[in-house]
Amino acid sequence: MEIDQHYRALSVETFSQRLGEVEAVASRVGGEPARWDIREVGDGNLNLVFIVSGDVGSVVVKQALPYVRMVGESWPLPIYRAHFEYYALVRQAKRAPGIAPEVYYFDKPQALFVMEYLHPHTILRRKLIAGERVAQLGETIGQFCARTAFRGSELSLSSPEKKQDVGLFSGNVAIPAITESLVFTDPYYAAEMNHHTPELSPVVDELRRNARLKAKVQRLLMKFTANTETMLHGDLHSGSIMATDTDVRVIDPEFSQYGPMAFDLGMAVANFLMAYFSQPAHRQESELAAYQTWILDVIEACFTSFDAEFRHLWQTERTGVLFPKALFEEQGNSADDACDALLDEIRLDALAYCGIEMHRRVLSLAHNADFEEIEDPALRAKLEARNVLMGQALIMEPEAYGDLSALMELAKAYSQREVL
Amino acid sequence: MEIDQHYRALSVETFSQRLGEVEAVASRVGGEPARWDIREVGDGNLNLVFIVSGDVGSVVVKQALPYVRMVGESWPLPIYRAHFEYYALVRQAKRAPGIAPEVYYFDKPQALFVMEYLHPHTILRRKLIAGERVAQLGETIGQFCARTAFRGSELSLSSPEKKQDVGLFSGNVAIPAITESLVFTDPYYAAEMNHHTPELSPVVDELRRNARLKAKVQRLLMKFTANTETMLHGDLHSGSIMATDTDVRVIDPEFSQYGPMAFDLGMAVANFLMAYFSQPAHRQESELAAYQTWILDVIEACFTSFDAEFRHLWQTERTGVLFPKALFEEQGNSADDACDALLDEIRLDALAYCGIEMHRRVLSLAHNADFEEIEDPALRAKLEARNVLMGQALIMEPEAYGDLSALMELAKAYSQREVL
Ligand SMILES: Nc1ncnc2c1ncn2[C@@H]1O[C@H](COP(=O)(O)OP(=O)(O)OP(=O)(O)O)[C@@H](O)[C@H]1O
Ligand SMILES: Nc1ncnc2c1ncn2[C@@H]1O[C@H](COP(=O)(O)OP(=O)(O)OP(=O)(O)O)[C@@H](O)[C@H]1O
Ligand SMILES: [Mg+2]
Ligand SMILES: [Mg+2]
Repeated sequence: MEIDQHYRALSVETFSQRLGEVEAVASRVGGEPARWDIREVGDGNLNLVFIVSGDVGSVVVKQALPYVRMVGESWPLPIYRAHFEYYALVRQAKRAPGIAPEVYYFDKPQALFVMEYLHPHTILRRKLIAGERVAQLGETIGQFCARTAFRGSELSLSSPEKKQDVGLFSGNVAIPAITESLVFTDPYYAAEMNHHTPELSPVVDELRRNARLKAKVQRLLMKFTANTETMLHGDLHSGSIMATDTDVRVIDPEFSQYGPMAFDLGMAVANFLMAYFSQPAHRQESELAAYQTWILDVIEACFTSFDAEFRHLWQTERTGVLFPKALFEEQGNSADDACDALLDEIRLDALAYCGIEMHRRVLSLAHNADFEEIEDPALRAKLEARNVLMGQALIMEPEAYGDLSALMELAKAYSQREVL
Repeated sequence: MEIDQHYRALSVETFSQRLGEVEAVASRVGGEPARWDIREVGDGNLNLVFIVSGDVGSVVVKQALPYVRMVGESWPLPIYRAHFEYYALVRQAKRAPGIAPEVYYFDKPQALFVMEYLHPHTILRRKLIAGERVAQLGETIGQFCARTAFRGSELSLSSPEKKQDVGLFSGNVAIPAITESLVFTDPYYAAEMNHHTPELSPVVDELRRNARLKAKVQRLLMKFTANTETMLHGDLHSGSIMATDTDVRVIDPEFSQYGPMAFDLGMAVANFLMAYFSQPAHRQESELAAYQTWILDVIEACFTSFDAEFRHLWQTERTGVLFPKALFEEQGNSADDACDALLDEIRLDALAYCGIEMHRRVLSLAHNADFEEIEDPALRAKLEARNVLMGQALIMEPEAYGDLSALMELAKAYSQREVL
């Protein structure tokens, strides 16, 4: 891994000296750089994130570190991943305006960029654990997924434009390998960095003995590694969504790559389902049912608005290589059936990707707070087991749950099941 | 399109002056460069191809022209495609040794490379028209497709290695667009450069009204454009195969790109089937049945040896990201079922790609001599019609012909059918 010799990690101490004269920062923060309020808030696992405030306003600065922050220098990770996060943010802004933070400045050798400070937004995962509601959550995420999926694909783009962009993103060579092992492979054997709630072991052991399941997951991995249908966010979990009561934004496309259209949608829904299954540990009995119902409504809205937006774009913006109007509309043939067939395929793959994400978050390296913060291991294992088994059902037989009411019934059934 | 300022097209006159001092050429050709025998044999549509002979031996030099040779300077085409042809030849030599011509020398700015002179090999398409047999033809092509498919995929490669190579080949930005339109889209509407036998029009018109067919073809195009499963030859027709009675070689991977594993296999089989359907125009009645039977045997051997070789590599060389042994063999689970399931998928996609190639060769720009050299238009149309309709059946319902005996029966049935 080559690092630009001028690369230096930022610190609170050196910050205003190093970025004080960058116009994109100075004009938005305002006042004397020496008096800026600088906080490092990177609660994440990988990068430095600073919030800088001054007389005029605030901006956020994100810089890649040459190693995995939560592990240390023993796990190196190329800083060029920040370049791709920047490229992804720029493309998302064009393809699904208003959702990603606006980018003000990009310094390639320093692997850093400056972006819009989202305020008073907080991380969606925290809201879901706290029992807060967000208006239009499912609609916004479904629409975001549809817009980025469609407009990043050859349904919209010309062939050379798309191939060039795939070539660019192929340069992000180290990142896909992380998703490939942490998400798709590690959950299904005793990989070194895995951990899980000990009480969950009987369920885990059985899952890992399911050879047909593992084959299905690997077939989906094959699509994930190779099928460059569109530019993905790549890590669209509830920790990558920031929201107020009424505004939904998506951050952190650091794992962006070209991949299957269904992937982001499936991952987002998985995180809603994990919020759903973990609720009994976070809610009073009196609020539980209503809040869980709200989460299921979010999931339904997410799928429904994905389809509606995708269909709308299919009809109004199909200007790319694929399903050209010259073959359909211009010959008096509707292409609507083809759109519906493609949406059916995307739905099934999304459900299967959803199941995989549900597994890796309780079996692999990176768990999520929804379950992780449940202190009683017996309760945690019980709720995780429901989640793991529903994930298995989605991978084994997605075609049984393509109908959204069947999906909702499945979630409700597992949320009552006494597994452990 | 940028051309290196030093690029100059070779000519018979300038050849020995320009390449006389290149050791890789001089040592293999031998003698005085001024006395070399230099013939330009590019019977193809795109490039300059020279055979150079001297006291010691012969080599072949291929150089890209900055436009489509058969059309002229009005259709520019980037010369960097020769770089990718070279990259592909090098990879094929490693992944399926002994099939592609050996490369001796590569001059990047001149977009040329020097390779092994295949002799006394001739183009397979000519042999098939002449009624010649080639031993091990289907076996060799099936094995070549399996080896390149498997070893160019993440069943074999590491994730970073594969992504890097996909990135490299994404630089061949103008080439995939040609396959995409000429093969997948133009056949199904009255595209500007199309032509077909006038007597075939009733069949063509009906084909172009089949909206379900067009949707299926576009779905396969979507896989072709995006699904970078392995490095393809990309143009594996019988004009890209050279053979003697007993030796089979594959040339001209100029349309190489990463794409679906099934594509090369399907295209090769389509060209065997077109040879099959065109035979009544080229054979005496007395030889016809036996020769057609031989072609069907070639097709069967091609599929069978693809499967056998792929399965063998699956068991012995599965060292990549996908279906890792850690999930299967090392946990006491066989991965053989997963291999069979993947081979079934590849078979069906290959049959559908086969059907598409059968269409484009009689409906789009680049026809093939098997049909084109039939002088009687009524006979040509009759034989082309059988070919078009069998192609349609393969696209519409590949699952009905995954069984090879059903496929053979289908070919025989169409070869008797009076369509026009
Ligand atoms: N544009 C923004 N506006 C406000 N807060 C932000 C913004 N970007 C990031 N943050 C805050 O910083 C935190 C870390 O950001 P981010 O998730 O992008 O970092 P990361 O190092 O990539 O972490 P992860 O381990 O989640 O990948 C976020 O959880 C959020 O609280
Ligand atoms: N290595 C070789 N040994 C012997 N003959 C060769 C070799 N390579 C090419 N040829 C001859 O030159 C002809 C043109 O080569 P090739 O098909 O590679 O050119 P092209 O310009 O790419 O044509 P196409 O239009 O088929 O793409 C071949 O049909 C074959 O007769
Ligand atoms: Mg991140
Ligand atoms: Mg060629």
